Amino acid sequence: MKCLIIAAGKGSRLLSRGDSKPLVPILGIPLIERVIRAAMEAGADEFFVVIGHQGERVRDFLAHLADRLAVRITPLVNDDWDKENGLSVLKARDVLLEPFLLLMADHLFDPNLIRPLTTLTLGDGEIALVVDGNTGNPLIDMEDVTRVKLEDDALPDSSEKSRSKKIIGIGKGLADFNGFDTGIFLCSPAIFKALEQSEEKDGDTSLSGAIRILAAEGRAKAILLDGFWIDVDDPAAFRRAEQVLLKRLRDKPNDGPVARYLNRPLSVRMSRYLVQRDVTPNQISLFSFLCSVLAAGLFMLGGYFFLIVGGVLAQFASIIDGCDGEVARLKYQSSDVGGWYDAVLDRYADAFLLFGLTWYLLVAEVSGGVLLIGFMAIIGSFMLSYTADKYDNLMSERVQAGGKAGLRMGRDVRVFLIFLGAISDMVLPVLVLIAVVMNLETLRRVKMALDGQH
Amino acid sequence: MKCLIIAAGKGSRLLSRGDSKPLVPILGIPLIERVIRAAMEAGADEFFVVIGHQGERVRDFLAHLADRLAVRITPLVNDDWDKENGLSVLKARDVLLEPFLLLMADHLFDPNLIRPLTTLTLGDGEIALVVDGNTGNPLIDMEDVTRVKLEDDALPDSSEKSRSKKIIGIGKGLADFNGFDTGIFLCSPAIFKALEQSEEKDGDTSLSGAIRILAAEGRAKAILLDGFWIDVDDPAAFRRAEQVLLKRLRDKPNDGPVARYLNRPLSVRMSRYLVQRDVTPNQISLFSFLCSVLAAGLFMLGGYFFLIVGGVLAQFASIIDGCDGEVARLKYQSSDVGGWYDAVLDRYADAFLLFGLTWYLLVAEVSGGVLLIGFMAIIGSFMLSYTADKYDNLMSERVQAGGKAGLRMGRDVRVFLIFLGAISDMVLPVLVLIAVVMNLETLRRVKMALDGQH
Repeated sequence: MKCLIIAAGKGSRLLSRGDSKPLVPILGIPLIERVIRAAMEAGADEFFVVIGHQGERVRDFLAHLADRLAVRITPLVNDDWDKENGLSVLKARDVLLEPFLLLMADHLFDPNLIRPLTTLTLGDGEIALVVDGNTGNPLIDMEDVTRVKLEDDALPDSSEKSRSKKIIGIGKGLADFNGFDTGIFLCSPAIFKALEQSEEKDGDTSLSGAIRILAAEGRAKAILLDGFWIDVDDPAAFRRAEQVLLKRLRDKPNDGPVARYLNRPLSVRMSRYLVQRDVTPNQISLFSFLCSVLAAGLFMLGGYFFLIVGGVLAQFASIIDGCDGEVARLKYQSSDVGGWYDAVLDRYADAFLLFGLTWYLLVAEVSGGVLLIGFMAIIGSFMLSYTADKYDNLMSERVQAGGKAGLRMGRDVRVFLIFLGAISDMVLPVLVLIAVVMNLETLRRVKMALDGQH
Repeated sequence: MKCLIIAAGKGSRLLSRGDSKPLVPILGIPLIERVIRAAMEAGADEFFVVIGHQGERVRDFLAHLADRLAVRITPLVNDDWDKENGLSVLKARDVLLEPFLLLMADHLFDPNLIRPLTTLTLGDGEIALVVDGNTGNPLIDMEDVTRVKLEDDALPDSSEKSRSKKIIGIGKGLADFNGFDTGIFLCSPAIFKALEQSEEKDGDTSLSGAIRILAAEGRAKAILLDGFWIDVDDPAAFRRAEQVLLKRLRDKPNDGPVARYLNRPLSVRMSRYLVQRDVTPNQISLFSFLCSVLAAGLFMLGGYFFLIVGGVLAQFASIIDGCDGEVARLKYQSSDVGGWYDAVLDRYADAFLLFGLTWYLLVAEVSGGVLLIGFMAIIGSFMLSYTADKYDNLMSERVQAGGKAGLRMGRDVRVFLIFLGAISDMVLPVLVLIAVVMNLETLRRVKMALDGQH
């Protein structure tokens, strides 16, 4: 499906962030790139971008982006970029002869808001607009948003789905409204004729003007959807958009309690800083690993002072360890190899930390019992990770079917225990706890796997 | 596809192995079960088995087998089981009205020999026989095999594939022949009429007699295939069949050098014994693991004597560790859970053995260096296993594309080094070697993964 993106305007209210609004980076990635990536994720595979203000810079950026994403991006020039946005849409009239997606370069959104449009069949001369029916949406700037009035509930004889309604009014000033224009359209080429009619009849060259023309003929329908979208129009909206993108990083169902309530809130703040810098996720993984090695080395020096410093450093490394994945997601750099690299370094880090604690105890007093406990903590901690992947595949059905979830002492809890043990000088109890819990949980998994075999 | 299996005869030459030939176990599994499993693997999904001699016992076995394999198996009784085998085929004339597979209960074969028949379209009134064109096949008893004479190379106007030829003669005594009857047929119901004609015309109630009738009319074709098959007719053939099944266990491309040349030849001999006993693969895994734990315990006792005994026991455990998979394959008990269980126990066993050796050295002299080396050997050995799975997926393409294969010091080599180190009292050098090689190889994998990322 082809996609037209309007990126011609000046965005004067965001000038503090950069001279070209489509190129303003939000958490490290320019707005226009986020829009294109979201559309690609939803199924768009060819792009036309209307450029105007700072057109050459945007054109250069798009040429490189097209290479990086291996997708066709054709720039269309609108010299009247300081006039209404309908003129930008009209620039595409000769190249878009089939239904196409229409998006705004300064609106961010969840790909799920676009996806329903890619399978929608338009009636003759129709257009469809994704409408946000949540009139209390806190992300919306009520001064600036385009308001939409939809017809009342679909009539009983309507064959359309309940989420699809007719638009009967649209405009910024609308007093009577029940939804917001998200700037996500599926257009038939009829939009071009409507734009011309709007100009001739009302002297109105805005996109909303054309929608009003189509609405008057019953040819503008709304698709009511819930989901994240935001018009990044001024610094306040920009900050709100950043906050939403960062908040989404924290919704990781696999996070353990320490990750969820302690590590993640802190790591997200660091990631917000890191995405602005030229730092790769793998470099963050390595840095976190080196902090853990240093912490283990401090443990091995012996003495309570180094024990505390090492414990704090270990916990710091555990927090940093969340940033690699966060930065990767924010900058579209997630990869299997990156995840694997992080996991391999984590295993080494775990082993070094536990070995460091064991050494710390042995320096104070040579004891076979301590050595055995340290060994069991290391092996248990490793086995928990080793069994996890395959175990999850084998067991997920059984667990969902009502089996006990088991004690999931993940890495976040493990390192936090090490931190607590170090700062309170309760190293041996922590090693015993880790050794017992990790190996018992591994045994429990083995038993569950074998029980399920027959 | 339906499948008819002839299992009525007495098998007088195998009486030493059991009173009912179809129920004679070969490496723990009755002949008839092996035939049915191979046919299922090739695509057969409903079975008719002609029983006769010891019919009630075979019927009982089949009822249980049908439950176990969740497949329909219908017994058909032939009271004339001591006469020619064509009479057994005739018992199915009322139930098989479409083309069907015809197999012998005492012929073992690779499922690949059946598979081409399941997609073959027979001409009107035709039958097809899988023919072994390897007239030097060492598995064949030349006294007893049914010989086949095929027409010369297909004529240029033939539309059939070159591997399919017409049968022009068949029989045990045939002097002029160029192939062997494997006992694997695809029959149309025309076979029943041919059997009757053969009886009326020649007084011949054998299956070969019917094939001769069809061959005379150009309606018997041969599919020439290479692959394992054997007629298990007498004790000599039985031993040959056992040897082939055991030999196939040794063709594991992932086996390291110690596994291939030392462990596997020995473990296959043990497996041959174990399949006769009521021992599950998981029990073998556990036994091997306990031997390793015992070996580690002997190391920890200290002293050269226990070191040697422990080393031998560790190597013995490593050999036994091959039997779980071998028995599973021979008895159709392979499972993901079984493989996972074995891998988890192996990781624990590795760690215990290396910890035992470290302890052995520390008992003689407390040393931080030894502790560090032991720790690095344990973690390196872990990491090699941990990185392997995902690494293999990520890297297999690159490695095949010409990258270096790297040092694959698998578990077989690792335990063998432990064995050598123990019996020669060179424990420290072995720990150093394992620590260095395992961690370097892990680092190499990490580097290769990261190099491939960009």
